[in-house]
Amino acid sequence: MRDSLVAAAIRLFLERGYEQTTIDDIVALAGVGRRSFFRYFPSKEDVVFPDHEQCLEDMTAFLQASEDEDDPVLRVCDAARLVLRMYAENPTFSVQRYRLTKKVPGLRTYELSVVRSYERTLADYLRGRFADRHDGALRANVVAAAVVAAHNHALRTWLRADGEGDATAEMDRALDYVAATWTPTPSAAGAAAEEDDVVIVITRRRTPMWRVVRDVEAGLGRD
Amino acid sequence: MRDSLVAAAIRLFLERGYEQTTIDDIVALAGVGRRSFFRYFPSKEDVVFPDHEQCLEDMTAFLQASEDEDDPVLRVCDAARLVLRMYAENPTFSVQRYRLTKKVPGLRTYELSVVRSYERTLADYLRGRFADRHDGALRANVVAAAVVAAHNHALRTWLRADGEGDATAEMDRALDYVAATWTPTPSAAGAAAEEDDVVIVITRRRTPMWRVVRDVEAGLGRD
Repeated sequence: MRDSLVAAAIRLFLERGYEQTTIDDIVALAGVGRRSFFRYFPSKEDVVFPDHEQCLEDMTAFLQASEDEDDPVLRVCDAARLVLRMYAENPTFSVQRYRLTKKVPGLRTYELSVVRSYERTLADYLRGRFADRHDGALRANVVAAAVVAAHNHALRTWLRADGEGDATAEMDRALDYVAATWTPTPSAAGAAAEEDDVVIVITRRRTPMWRVVRDVEAGLGRD
Repeated sequence: MRDSLVAAAIRLFLERGYEQTTIDDIVALAGVGRRSFFRYFPSKEDVVFPDHEQCLEDMTAFLQASEDEDDPVLRVCDAARLVLRMYAENPTFSVQRYRLTKKVPGLRTYELSVVRSYERTLADYLRGRFADRHDGALRANVVAAAVVAAHNHALRTWLRADGEGDATAEMDRALDYVAATWTPTPSAAGAAAEEDDVVIVITRRRTPMWRVVRDVEAGLGRD
């Protein structure tokens, strides 16, 4: 019944316009009573975003299941992928909704609140993981916003192309960019590994070899 | 007249509650006609955020006045500081609005749209500046979101402390974090310098010296 309410609503919103469609129109087309509508959806906006609440619960559970050894930035990137998966499961519906949302200011604001809930969920998790950093809360908020922005960039690119193309590849590219910004870079990894018995030597190309060897020996603690 | 409408509205919203206050109540207290209200504000929400439209215009003008030699990330950080300045000019009003907005869902959604307009303005500017990068649009969206998140983090910290303390110092700390994330870091500078005649060798501490020398020679292109 829930699905047929969503289908009826979207069909009417596209045919007649969102504002022009009443909840009575929707229940009439779906062949159910008015109270059935409100059993599933608190308002007309909610029927346009029927799966977000479930997706937010899945995201929260996924983050709660995180282990200490999981990189927190990669974990929130994977959490964001759950949202894409929901959109990609039903490209036709997702593209229809995208077009509808662009036209209806009320739906755009509703979508902003939805996006904000995802961002807050990611930030809450990161705040816990960054709790021992002096800039933990700031970092958590900034990383969460960056992940959401990258996710939305990839999602919108795919929706603008009418749901054609490889949404997952687009998403990987966008989230990899964020992950590369905050997960250890080669040099940072080198610095971390340095404690674990690695030496990094930086030298100019023209430096004579005797001098390079001396610097390497110094770095190895053999001087 | 605009100011007295704002003052009357905020006073009533705090005394009676936002939902319980009508536009008629506001104009009665301000001693003006109903049409005067709508001359200044399209809706009841707008009277709570009277300066954002002006601030958005100032931000747009500030970004348009940017020179090619300005670092784009630092420029958007400075643009975000314009929003803080607006809040800091009137701490009492800002703190009152913060408390009111926390309580009224309709105002929170309104605020989300306002924040989204700032973010879009910053992203539009960055997209232009990053136009020659293959990941320009993605980078623009992510940096804009990060700047807005850092700004909001500092602003909320200050508002939660009832507008006490040094808002500017808090903001500098937050925006410096974002700037440091995307403006050239020492390691990125190293990587750039590498092309300019620098060789980086990473080796394990236990590696025999002959092997280190061989690797350095290979790196120096002398093999």
